[in-house]
Amino acid sequence: MAADDTYPNFNPALAAAACGILVALTSLTGALAPPGDWYAALNRPPGTPPDVAFPIAWTLLYIAMAVAAWRVWRARGPGREVALFVLQLALNALWMPVAFGAHALGWALLVIVVLWLAVAATTAAFWRADRLAGLLFAIYLAWVSYAVYLNAGLFWLN
Amino acid sequence: MAADDTYPNFNPALAAAACGILVALTSLTGALAPPGDWYAALNRPPGTPPDVAFPIAWTLLYIAMAVAAWRVWRARGPGREVALFVLQLALNALWMPVAFGAHALGWALLVIVVLWLAVAATTAAFWRADRLAGLLFAIYLAWVSYAVYLNAGLFWLN
Repeated sequence: MAADDTYPNFNPALAAAACGILVALTSLTGALAPPGDWYAALNRPPGTPPDVAFPIAWTLLYIAMAVAAWRVWRARGPGREVALFVLQLALNALWMPVAFGAHALGWALLVIVVLWLAVAATTAAFWRADRLAGLLFAIYLAWVSYAVYLNAGLFWLN
Repeated sequence: MAADDTYPNFNPALAAAACGILVALTSLTGALAPPGDWYAALNRPPGTPPDVAFPIAWTLLYIAMAVAAWRVWRARGPGREVALFVLQLALNALWMPVAFGAHALGWALLVIVVLWLAVAATTAAFWRADRLAGLLFAIYLAWVSYAVYLNAGLFWLN
């Protein structure tokens, strides 16, 4: 239980800038490859939420991710946990261009399953470093689980 | 300059729950009265952003509002500033049902102009109580200014 640890020489502003900028850049991949008319014309699996749910959920999740990474950085410094975070963020950034840019739902399914594994590993590492960060990542993991289902449904129905 | 003041007997969890729940309830008015097909068929003024910008902007703004109100509550207690905040939040909650529920763009314009005045007054009060809260509300005020223009454009073009 290390929730109140602080890494020596922790720089709050530097960590906030790094986490904020990395997450903001990742969120831009959604703007570069929007779902558009192609997505609107797909057959969707049961349980697909209304379109407006995605930007709201992702805005909240990106903020939760940045806060979680900042807290883990504070607790443990820029070590293994933050490296896992950057890895899952890179996979996250890849999904929208593959799914909505390239219209490659099979490759997108592969990306999101690997993303799920990376988020699960990050959640476990974050939980050990900081309880709140672990909880925030558990919510993100739940959402990605749902997104795996939606991606699989889109792949098989279209 | 009172940014580091803390109100005596400030209860961080109570203030967070109150600010969070009030703002979350307000955000639900958007879900109850979505723009829908009616909005999609309107003539839009130049400079209207893509639809996806609204849920992203409002998710960020509602979080900013809740953080700002929490900080001002911490600095000044539940006084005049928090009362102004609740007033602007009530006007904010009114806009979506009037515009997209009742399809009354003229009345919605009246609501949003009064909202602008309430947000401006809250921004001034928040700035004096807590600098970060004032900055967060200044961003919100800028967005509401843009929304006044969009509402006016929709009213005159339709």
